[in-house]
Amino acid sequence: MSRYGKRDDLIVHESEPFNAETGLTSLGTPLTDTDAFYVRGHGAIPETDPESWRLQVAGLVERELSLSFGTLREAFRERTVTATLQCAGNRRAGLMAVRDIPGEAPWGPGATGTATWTGVALAEVLALARPLETASDVGFEGADLSPETEPTERFGGSIPLDKASRPEVLLAWAMNGERLTPVHGAPVRVVVPGYIGARSVKWLERIELRSEPWAGHFQHVAYRLVPADEKPGPGVGMPLGLVALNSDLLSPRDGETVQAGPVEARGYAFAGGDRYVARVDVSIDGGVSWSQAELLEDLGRWAWRHWRITLSLAPGEHEILVRAWDSSAATQPDDEAGLWNPKGYVNNARPRIRVRAVHASS
Amino acid sequence: MSRYGKRDDLIVHESEPFNAETGLTSLGTPLTDTDAFYVRGHGAIPETDPESWRLQVAGLVERELSLSFGTLREAFRERTVTATLQCAGNRRAGLMAVRDIPGEAPWGPGATGTATWTGVALAEVLALARPLETASDVGFEGADLSPETEPTERFGGSIPLDKASRPEVLLAWAMNGERLTPVHGAPVRVVVPGYIGARSVKWLERIELRSEPWAGHFQHVAYRLVPADEKPGPGVGMPLGLVALNSDLLSPRDGETVQAGPVEARGYAFAGGDRYVARVDVSIDGGVSWSQAELLEDLGRWAWRHWRITLSLAPGEHEILVRAWDSSAATQPDDEAGLWNPKGYVNNARPRIRVRAVHASS
Repeated sequence: MSRYGKRDDLIVHESEPFNAETGLTSLGTPLTDTDAFYVRGHGAIPETDPESWRLQVAGLVERELSLSFGTLREAFRERTVTATLQCAGNRRAGLMAVRDIPGEAPWGPGATGTATWTGVALAEVLALARPLETASDVGFEGADLSPETEPTERFGGSIPLDKASRPEVLLAWAMNGERLTPVHGAPVRVVVPGYIGARSVKWLERIELRSEPWAGHFQHVAYRLVPADEKPGPGVGMPLGLVALNSDLLSPRDGETVQAGPVEARGYAFAGGDRYVARVDVSIDGGVSWSQAELLEDLGRWAWRHWRITLSLAPGEHEILVRAWDSSAATQPDDEAGLWNPKGYVNNARPRIRVRAVHASS
Repeated sequence: MSRYGKRDDLIVHESEPFNAETGLTSLGTPLTDTDAFYVRGHGAIPETDPESWRLQVAGLVERELSLSFGTLREAFRERTVTATLQCAGNRRAGLMAVRDIPGEAPWGPGATGTATWTGVALAEVLALARPLETASDVGFEGADLSPETEPTERFGGSIPLDKASRPEVLLAWAMNGERLTPVHGAPVRVVVPGYIGARSVKWLERIELRSEPWAGHFQHVAYRLVPADEKPGPGVGMPLGLVALNSDLLSPRDGETVQAGPVEARGYAFAGGDRYVARVDVSIDGGVSWSQAELLEDLGRWAWRHWRITLSLAPGEHEILVRAWDSSAATQPDDEAGLWNPKGYVNNARPRIRVRAVHASS
């Protein structure tokens, strides 16, 4: 066991604050085990006693609320949603191979995972607080202080009220059927399916109804797609929110040597927003022709989709290229270099790996 | 004036049934004039007397309805929505340049347009009919018979009940402030913002609550994205629905000769679904570097966004390349050839034109 009850095969990018991604093997199951699930944090993990924890609901509401953990569980209907979380920095390593991104972690394809989340619908809590007509955004503030900001700031972010009113957005206290662990936001975190992980605020303490998006660092400065030739800063670039269509190849691995003949390729695809994965194609001729992968277990509209395909590889060098399609019939962009951006977010280029197929040594 | 009260500059692909796209110049305004708006039809235009017209609401409902035009206007609140319609075959000409698509019209960038639509929310009509728990899809059937089907079939299609329950989906009788003309679906058509034009069924006569998507030709056979190496047929390929992120360059035109120096480029971008256009980039060095275009008038979340940029073109040949970004930070795919499909739908490749810049002849 590594720290925080995590498996040893996590790839730790930073130990304090703890930032670690799921190992390739552990990404291969439809639901990601909790002890293998990625962790992205911006400060020390706050330890909160559920007995003394309170959730404040404030801002543009008719009635401010202060709810205990007990009230949250008693007053509202318990719901479970299967949802993929994906960090906006997932697959950043591919962009860093194009050009360095100093100060950011080289996340591979494991800054994502899928779990069942149990809690109550944020919408029901908001209904009790009665948002004013002027409210358009719902902000979340955690208990974690981030030394990345000057002055020190609690982590936070917001989503549109329209999304917050949908039944899939949860205030969750359980993950994969067990109470949230401290590293995943205990006692209560937000889970915003279809949105970048940064909006699923952990160690939630305050909900603020607002007339504009969150003005804090982690939405107004960070987690924005900045054009390649601009410098990150307050309000620069487009705010991230919905996850963009993405996919990756988990097996075989880049640079692997495989036996020539039938080779199974596997991976995941995630449509983001409220879209679903409609198709995944694989090419071994540089994108001239494509074969359709088999889509595996369907975990519902908020989850990734695993896929597999059997390729026939002659002895020699091969490039395996993947593209996913979402339910709007949009597919991924091809040019990873053209997606480079100063903070290294949203690398959703078509995954591309090289393998070497050799004759069986029998 | 050409037929059906249309301007002469429409590009007519078929005269019977009438199929014509908006000319490039007329695409350049934020709202598309009604007499310049594209027309996509699959049969002769039915002439209906609003006095005798009735709208049936049937299928999985507690209460079937038969509504007159007068009742529709009196019983529900009038709403106006500005929405872009876009045919799934928009920009097919680009795919046909890759490989021919027999039997399909070579639509350019003008199978799209934006208008204000006035009518009532479909959701309010459905509330009166009270959909059963088993209803998941809302089908629309027009009065138009299509000779393309065997046996002859009325045009129709469906959308998910979830979308049909949103306030932007209209049963519309007016376009750009004037009563619908026969060619645009009089007396009443559906308008489904963010969806392919085929779901905005014209000459609406029947709404059917269903437990599965529309089984008719125009959803079960046509308007599906079929893989390049498969043959279109019932249920083959993915059903289209949401419009995929798209854009095009309206000026300068491909092959045009322009004066060297500052050259203004203009075009449109449309995010589709309920997404918005977050950014449009233009490159004149083959995608190595990109400049951001200025986004023009914001007509709201259901409409395209026009854009413009001033490029500095030295004398010589240039390629102008465009990519739009939606609010999930997804951008368009690059390879038009890789998007080729047997019915020629959803060409949303990055637009690319060539111009020749010459010294002023002064």
